[in-house]
Amino acid sequence: MAPKCYLFISIMSSGGQLGRMLAASASLLNVQVNVLDVGADAPAKQIIASSSHIDGSFRDKEKILELASKVDVLTVEIEHVDVDALEAVRIAHPNVQIHPTPSTIRLIQDKFAQKQHLSLFAIPLGPFQAVEPTPDAIAQAVNDLGLPLMLKSRTMAYDGRGNYALHAVDSQSISSAIDFLGSGSRQLYAEKWVLFVKELAVMVVRGIDGTVISYPAVETIHKDNICHLVWAPIRLGGINEDPELPRKAERVAREAIEKGFEGAGVFGVEMFLLEDNSLLINEIAPRPHNSGHYTIEACESSQYDNHLRAILGLPLGSTRMKVGAAGMLNILGSSNSSSSMSSSLVSFSPDLLIDKLTYLALSTPGASPHLYGKAQSRKGRKMGHITVVGSSDAEVRQRMAPFSSPARTLPPHPLISIIMGSDSDLPTMLPAAQILQKHFPSVPFEVTLVSAHRTPLRLMSFAKSAAGRGVKVIIAGAGGAAHLPGMVASMTGLPVVGVPVDSKSVSGGGGGLGGVDAMWSILQMPRGIPVATVAINNSTNAALLAVRIISVGQPHLITQMEEYLNRLGDEVERKISVMGETGWGEYGKK
Amino acid sequence: MAPKCYLFISIMSSGGQLGRMLAASASLLNVQVNVLDVGADAPAKQIIASSSHIDGSFRDKEKILELASKVDVLTVEIEHVDVDALEAVRIAHPNVQIHPTPSTIRLIQDKFAQKQHLSLFAIPLGPFQAVEPTPDAIAQAVNDLGLPLMLKSRTMAYDGRGNYALHAVDSQSISSAIDFLGSGSRQLYAEKWVLFVKELAVMVVRGIDGTVISYPAVETIHKDNICHLVWAPIRLGGINEDPELPRKAERVAREAIEKGFEGAGVFGVEMFLLEDNSLLINEIAPRPHNSGHYTIEACESSQYDNHLRAILGLPLGSTRMKVGAAGMLNILGSSNSSSSMSSSLVSFSPDLLIDKLTYLALSTPGASPHLYGKAQSRKGRKMGHITVVGSSDAEVRQRMAPFSSPARTLPPHPLISIIMGSDSDLPTMLPAAQILQKHFPSVPFEVTLVSAHRTPLRLMSFAKSAAGRGVKVIIAGAGGAAHLPGMVASMTGLPVVGVPVDSKSVSGGGGGLGGVDAMWSILQMPRGIPVATVAINNSTNAALLAVRIISVGQPHLITQMEEYLNRLGDEVERKISVMGETGWGEYGKK
Repeated sequence: MAPKCYLFISIMSSGGQLGRMLAASASLLNVQVNVLDVGADAPAKQIIASSSHIDGSFRDKEKILELASKVDVLTVEIEHVDVDALEAVRIAHPNVQIHPTPSTIRLIQDKFAQKQHLSLFAIPLGPFQAVEPTPDAIAQAVNDLGLPLMLKSRTMAYDGRGNYALHAVDSQSISSAIDFLGSGSRQLYAEKWVLFVKELAVMVVRGIDGTVISYPAVETIHKDNICHLVWAPIRLGGINEDPELPRKAERVAREAIEKGFEGAGVFGVEMFLLEDNSLLINEIAPRPHNSGHYTIEACESSQYDNHLRAILGLPLGSTRMKVGAAGMLNILGSSNSSSSMSSSLVSFSPDLLIDKLTYLALSTPGASPHLYGKAQSRKGRKMGHITVVGSSDAEVRQRMAPFSSPARTLPPHPLISIIMGSDSDLPTMLPAAQILQKHFPSVPFEVTLVSAHRTPLRLMSFAKSAAGRGVKVIIAGAGGAAHLPGMVASMTGLPVVGVPVDSKSVSGGGGGLGGVDAMWSILQMPRGIPVATVAINNSTNAALLAVRIISVGQPHLITQMEEYLNRLGDEVERKISVMGETGWGEYGKK
Repeated sequence: MAPKCYLFISIMSSGGQLGRMLAASASLLNVQVNVLDVGADAPAKQIIASSSHIDGSFRDKEKILELASKVDVLTVEIEHVDVDALEAVRIAHPNVQIHPTPSTIRLIQDKFAQKQHLSLFAIPLGPFQAVEPTPDAIAQAVNDLGLPLMLKSRTMAYDGRGNYALHAVDSQSISSAIDFLGSGSRQLYAEKWVLFVKELAVMVVRGIDGTVISYPAVETIHKDNICHLVWAPIRLGGINEDPELPRKAERVAREAIEKGFEGAGVFGVEMFLLEDNSLLINEIAPRPHNSGHYTIEACESSQYDNHLRAILGLPLGSTRMKVGAAGMLNILGSSNSSSSMSSSLVSFSPDLLIDKLTYLALSTPGASPHLYGKAQSRKGRKMGHITVVGSSDAEVRQRMAPFSSPARTLPPHPLISIIMGSDSDLPTMLPAAQILQKHFPSVPFEVTLVSAHRTPLRLMSFAKSAAGRGVKVIIAGAGGAAHLPGMVASMTGLPVVGVPVDSKSVSGGGGGLGGVDAMWSILQMPRGIPVATVAINNSTNAALLAVRIISVGQPHLITQMEEYLNRLGDEVERKISVMGETGWGEYGKK
C-alpha cells in the first residue's frame, strides 16, 4: 500500500481527545498521523487508519524512539511526556522535528520553574515561592504569603490534582496538606491565594518562525477544578470593567509565549482577572487546550488546524471568530462504567448523563456534540464536549440553558441598551422597551439612566464598555439640550439611535419647544460622529430601527421585521373594510 | 477489542469523498462506520479505523450482502449502486435499515423515470420525452422540442457523462449523438433545451418520519459540466429578479423530496432559474452533494451531520448558515499522476495545481482546504475542495479572488446602497461615497438613482430586492418633499438612513427652506416604520452610520471606527498645538 501523502506526524497521547481532534484536522490536509497510545483502540487511533500506530505509553522511551523512526514531525497532546526520551530522539533521529521543543516541555512540566522563567520577562504573575514539604517551611510560606495558601506540586499537577488549599496554620492542617501532596515525595511550591473576579483563557499559536497570533480571550468556568464551561468571546461584566480587557488578555498571553518559550504549536494560557482589572497568568499548557475546543465550530481556523499548520511550518490560519458567540460545555462521566454493544439507535453510551446531554445537544439548534470514543466512563472523566454557536451571546445562552445550570441562571447580555438622561424621560422611552418585549422577544435589552450632565463619568464608562459588554445598538433618549446621544456616539464605534424627548416639565429644561430643541441637538451632529435620529418622542421607531440594525448580524430578523410590516398593513386593511361597511360618516363619529 | 459504541453504519463508496466526510461526522457521535470500497486505502477508509471494512465494488452483490451482515444501517454515497442487491439485503437482513430506500434509488437511477414520477406531483420540470436511439425517433424529438436538443442516457449519467447537446438535425449530427451516447446499448430520453439565467441547488434533509427541512438555496457554477464553484446563499442578480426566489427555490426543492421520494437522508436538488423568474428542477441526487460541501464550515449542522442524523432517526440539526456568506471551489486534478512519498513539508500531492490551490487556501483567511486522499490524480477528477467563509459576500469574493477567475471578475455585492431621487442630489451625496472609499475600503457600496415620484415602480423593485441582493443598509438622500427614505423603509426590513438634502434649485422643489422641509419629511415617520435621520446635507455621517450598523455583523469594523474617531481627535490635538504655538490671534487670521 503506497502512502498517499508526503507527511507523517506523530502524536503521543494520553486520554486521547486532543490527538483525536488533531487527527481530524490532519485528515483534511491528507496528513498521515501515527499515534503512540496504550491499546489498539485509543480515541485518536479510532479515526485515523494507520498500520503504523504504536501500542505503548507516552512515558516509554523505547516506544517513543520507535515512533520517531516512522515520522517527520513529533508532537504531544500531554506535557507529562518523558522529556529525556525526546532528547534521545534528537540524537537518534536528527531530522525529526519535535514541537513543542523538549526544552519548552521541560520548563512547563515544572510549574515552579515555569513561573520563575516567566518572571524574567515581566509577565504578570501572582506572588509565589518554593517551599519544602516540612511544617516549618510551610508555616514560613504562610507568614510570607498569608492564608489561605495554595500549595502545589511542582510537577504532574493538572485538573486540580496536586493542588491543596491550606486554610489554617495548625500542625494538623499542615500535615494533611503534606499527606495529600505526596508526603515529601514531590517538590512543592506555594502561591499567594488569588481572589479573582473571573477566569480567562487565551489560545496562542506560535509559528515555526516565532511569530505568535492569538484567539479571542474567553471566559472559563471551573467546577471542582475541572474546566466546565467556556464562553467565547469574553464579555465585560459591567460598565466598570476595563474596556481594554479582551485585548489586554490577548496581549499578555502572546507576550508570555513569544518571550518565554521555544518551538511551534498551540499554547493554552490561563489567567485570572482581579478586582482591580489587572490580569495574572495562572498556568500555561504547551498544546491545544480544553478552553479552545470551541474554535472547531466558531473560528475561521480551529486550534487543531493551527497546531498542525504551526508544527508543519505551513501558513497559520485566521483565528477570527466566524460566529457572533459560542459556548462550550464539557461532558464529564457521571459514573464508572464501560460500554458494550447494543442495537439502540439513540443510545450512545452506558453513562446516562452522557446519553442525556448528547441527545439534548442533538435537539438544540447550533449545538455540536463531540464524543471522544473512550471505552471507560469514570466519574469526572472528560468523555466529550458540546459546542454551541449563535449569532449573539444571548442566543448562545438561550440555546445552552437546557443543559447547563450556569447558562440558565445568568442574565442574558443585552443586544440593545436603552438609556435616558432622567427618569422623567421614562414614559416617553417605555414604548421602545414594550415593543421589543412584545414583538421581538429574542432580542434582549436593558433599560437604565445615564445623564450626560449629572453623571459624566458614568457616561464615559457606559460608552466605552458598551461594545465589550456585547451591546450592538444604543438607544438614547434626551430632552432639552439633549447631549446624551451625541456624547455617547463620540466614545463608541457602535450605532447610536437618538430619540428627541419633548420635555414639558421645568426640570427637563425645554418646556414649550415641543421637543424641537432636543431634535436639533441630536440631529445636527458634526461631520464624523453620526447619531441616527428618529421622530420626536417616537421611541417605538427607535426600537424598530435597532432591530433592523441587529438584523445585519441576524438575517432571520429581516423576515421578522417584514412580517411586522405586513401586520401593520393588515391592520389598515381591517380599518378599510370597517370604513367600507359602516360608511365614513359613521366611522368618523367613533 | 470491544466496540466502543452502539451504532454501526455502512457506506458503499465510489471515489469516496462523500463517505469520507460522512465518516468525519460519524466520529463526532462515536458511530462506527464500515466501508465497502475497492482497496484497503479508499478515502473513507483512511479516516475511520475499522476491522470490518470490506474490499469490493458497490456493484458486487455478495460484498453488499456481506457488508449488510455487519451493520444496523446501510447508506450509499452513490446512486449507481446495485438496487437488486439492496432488495436482497431486505430479505436476508430484515433488521438492517437502508437509506435512502431501494425504491428511491431505483427511481433516481433512471432520470427519465425520475422526471415522469416528479411530474405526477406538479413539480416544475422542463419538457422531456422518451426517445429511441434511432435517427427517426431523434428527428421526431427535435420536431417536438426544437433545437438544440439535450439527449441524455436514462441511467449512469453524471458530471456531464451521458449527456449530448444536439445542434443540428442532419444524419451526421444524429449518428454522432447516438455513437457518443453508447450506440443504442442504453435507453435515452430527450429534454427541451433550457436557456437558464443561473443554476441553483438546494440540499434537502428528509427525516425518518418524512419531515423535510432545507438548507439555503445556493448558486452553482459549472465548468465542462462539472460543479466548479458554489456561492452560498444565493443572491439576486438585480432589482428585477423575484425577491422571493431564495424562498421559492427552497419550497420547490422541499416539495419534490417530500412528495416524490421515500426514505431518510439528504437529497441534492439542482435547479435552473429562467429569464421569466420561474424555476425548473434539473436533477436530484439521493445523497449528500457537491453543492452542499460548504455546509461543513458555514452551517450550524453540515449536510453530513444531517444525513447521519436522518438515517439514524436522530433529531435533525439546524440548517441555518452561521456565517454571512460562503464560497466553495472544487479542486480538480490537472493531470494523470499518482503520488509517492516525499519529505517535503509543503508538498501535498504530485499534481502541481492541487499543491498550488492548497497552499493558496492555507494562506487565505477563512479558507479551509479539504483533500480527499485519492491515490490517483486524473484530469478533471475531484481531488478536494476549498470552502471560504466570510462575514459578507463581498468578503468571500475578495478572499476567493486569488484562486478563482469567476470570483476575480464578478463585481462585489454591495453592502451599502446609496440612492438619491435625482442626479442634482449627487454633489450632496458624494461625500458618503468618498469617505467609504477612503476609510473603509473593505465595505463595498453602490450609488444609483431611485426617484419616489418619477420611478415609483423602480422604487418598489429596489426596496423589495435589496436584502436579497445582499445589501445591509440603504442610505437615501432626498430634498423637498423627500419621500424616498420613508417609502423605501416601508417596503424592506433593512435599516434605512435618510439624508435631508437642501434643494437650492427650483427643480428640487424646496428652494429657500435650507433643507428643513426634507428634514421634517424624513424625520417624522409614523410609528412602525423608522428612518435613521442624519443632519441636513451630512451624507458623510450617513456613511459613517452605515459602517457602524454593518459592524453588528463584522465586529472588526467597530475597531476601525474607533480608530477613525481617534484620528478625528488627533486632528484636533494638532490644531491645539498649532494654536498654542502661533497664538490665537495669528491663528485666527489664517
